[in-house]
Amino acid sequence: MARIVMKFGGTSMAGIERIRAVAARVKREVDAGHQVAVVVSAMAGETDRLVNFCREASSLYDPREYDVVVASGEQVTSGLLAIALQAIGVPARSWLGWQLPIETSAAHASARIETIAMDAALATGEVAVIPGFQGVSEGRVSTLGRGGSDTSAVAVAAAMKAERCDIYTDVDGVYTTDPRIVPRARKLKRVTYEEMLELASVGAKVLQTRSVGLAMKEGVRIRVLSSFVDGDDDTGTLIVSEEELGDMERQLITGIAHDKNEAKITLTDVPDRPGAVGSIFTPLAEAGINVDMIVQNIAHSRGSTDVTFTVPAADLARSLDVLTKAQDAIGYTGLVHDPRVAKITVVGVGMRSHAGVAATMFKTLGARGINIQAITTSEIKVSVLIDEDETELAVRVLHTAYGLDAEEAA
Amino acid sequence: MARIVMKFGGTSMAGIERIRAVAARVKREVDAGHQVAVVVSAMAGETDRLVNFCREASSLYDPREYDVVVASGEQVTSGLLAIALQAIGVPARSWLGWQLPIETSAAHASARIETIAMDAALATGEVAVIPGFQGVSEGRVSTLGRGGSDTSAVAVAAAMKAERCDIYTDVDGVYTTDPRIVPRARKLKRVTYEEMLELASVGAKVLQTRSVGLAMKEGVRIRVLSSFVDGDDDTGTLIVSEEELGDMERQLITGIAHDKNEAKITLTDVPDRPGAVGSIFTPLAEAGINVDMIVQNIAHSRGSTDVTFTVPAADLARSLDVLTKAQDAIGYTGLVHDPRVAKITVVGVGMRSHAGVAATMFKTLGARGINIQAITTSEIKVSVLIDEDETELAVRVLHTAYGLDAEEAA
Repeated sequence: MARIVMKFGGTSMAGIERIRAVAARVKREVDAGHQVAVVVSAMAGETDRLVNFCREASSLYDPREYDVVVASGEQVTSGLLAIALQAIGVPARSWLGWQLPIETSAAHASARIETIAMDAALATGEVAVIPGFQGVSEGRVSTLGRGGSDTSAVAVAAAMKAERCDIYTDVDGVYTTDPRIVPRARKLKRVTYEEMLELASVGAKVLQTRSVGLAMKEGVRIRVLSSFVDGDDDTGTLIVSEEELGDMERQLITGIAHDKNEAKITLTDVPDRPGAVGSIFTPLAEAGINVDMIVQNIAHSRGSTDVTFTVPAADLARSLDVLTKAQDAIGYTGLVHDPRVAKITVVGVGMRSHAGVAATMFKTLGARGINIQAITTSEIKVSVLIDEDETELAVRVLHTAYGLDAEEAA
Repeated sequence: MARIVMKFGGTSMAGIERIRAVAARVKREVDAGHQVAVVVSAMAGETDRLVNFCREASSLYDPREYDVVVASGEQVTSGLLAIALQAIGVPARSWLGWQLPIETSAAHASARIETIAMDAALATGEVAVIPGFQGVSEGRVSTLGRGGSDTSAVAVAAAMKAERCDIYTDVDGVYTTDPRIVPRARKLKRVTYEEMLELASVGAKVLQTRSVGLAMKEGVRIRVLSSFVDGDDDTGTLIVSEEELGDMERQLITGIAHDKNEAKITLTDVPDRPGAVGSIFTPLAEAGINVDMIVQNIAHSRGSTDVTFTVPAADLARSLDVLTKAQDAIGYTGLVHDPRVAKITVVGVGMRSHAGVAATMFKTLGARGINIQAITTSEIKVSVLIDEDETELAVRVLHTAYGLDAEEAA
């Protein structure tokens, strides 16, 4: 008997018919002799509805009351799934965040899970149905922030030392790249936490980044698979440690991600002196704006330099405001911005031991006349900033260049 | 400083604009120096939506999980009202059933409130916003049954020894009869608990019957008033004890109610012997069917009798089934039923000390050719069963006969 956590997202819980299908899937694992805990999202669209109520009620809502309102969506689906499971003969009960409890930090609306007590729920022998996204802090309802149900599932899996955390979603696994752009994209059988983190943070929307980080820290094996496709234990994509992946399966490049949600800002004629860069990024950090790629050109002969960086597109207006106010302190002369950029990232743990990954990237893009506006690298990824219009072209040529194309279209 | 409970129903909470209006009304009481607790219903239609989810998931749903699902509606409105109050500068917080706590019996889906702890909520000095309808039993969410928010409000008022429990609804008070039938119906300034109980149980849908019974037991003064009409402290209808009403205001007849939700059943040729009546009503009681009016005719010369009684119209089919199965045990020969009946009830504490109330009723109806099919009486009411088609006529002529008509149309 293995302990397994199954997590179902909003599209899987959208309506009673789908909840019944989820119950049938849970029953299969129970019938196979496993001890199962299920973590559920709210019905698709419900959390948006509740968030909008709060925003309408007050633009400056109390996050503690916001949590009371928005946590109700998962409360509903957890009760309904327990009913649907009982209806097909599977003993089950819901365990709300305050009932287990799932203790979190006091940062309402973006709380972090501190401890989860699973003993009482496991002792009953019933399937524990746990609303994702919610917890309790000092006796009050808390939530983890949008997409938090993945994190709830991984935390529950860690707390009950589950063999696996199965995340059922509307895609059937993690692909080498977006199959809508590259029909020959391949589904990955396994991917490492580190790779998944890089992929998730640059736009592969399969899993919430936080949940992958937590799984890596706690050693929880995640399997991503589709709610809507039946399959055996080999379906989907396993997210595991590098050790478990093994040398045999290690590939040079695992996947290619793209992200159109950044905007580029260039400050011209920034004084070329110590502290200049700090005077740019300190006020942005104080405004809570996350700067990503940074390029500083070689100093002009006149003792100044141009600095280019990216911010989330949603924060562009605020960034320009902050920088305009700080113009005197920074001492730049020109402020240029461009929201029409895309970040293309190639990811792979294999590149640690192989030179030439970045060179292949630059050469491939250059051959198609794609101009690289900025570059960042980490141990297992290389990202470049390009014109947004060239996103699909860049992804396709890189997918082929790194040998990722499947034999036949997926 | 008085302690006041304000309760708002589903139409008052339907959407953010209305919730804002509720907040403004609460602010007025706070500004007047009162300590206020607010009890809220779910948004109009929301509880139906949630109940339907449960029924769809399983016709035999677990009432404990049903409670988890349906309690969420009031959770949402309590959080939203707390936000709306804070937005206009009124310190407020929501207190869910498990947080106060509101301890109930373990009869999920129709629980009874046992204790409410208000000290912590009152100590904060903030407005306590309490979701109606819900409580907690042995650590699990419980609900009081449909319409339970009125009962929650009265129980909270009793627990905090409130001077008054103001029930805001979509009518502006309790009337002598349904103003849609009698335009000259008058709004009552005061009515006793006993009268309100009789009126509520026969179709005046202003308040849940249980809440009136609890208010009487706990001595909670209820005021019924409209959410949608502004008024001073004299608006609405006060529901008080007979002592508080005083002799001056005591009227012979307070109101006239009608109820079309009963069905009549007649068993013919029931043997006229001891135990015969028991053999009819015992199986109905065992089936949970509530028999109301009972008339047993004088025995036929042949040693048998006809027995007529009413049951809730919704239980008619089930009643006929039970009686058909019990035909041999009861020994009747004929089974006749008629769902097209109405019960007309005149209510008034004054009738205790006045003879002739029933006689006036029978004479008035007889003069218009309205046939009385059954009669029941209590100390403060007389009910008759008539043809459903004559409901409006009967209410109108009785309203006039008892001198209840207002000088001008309401």
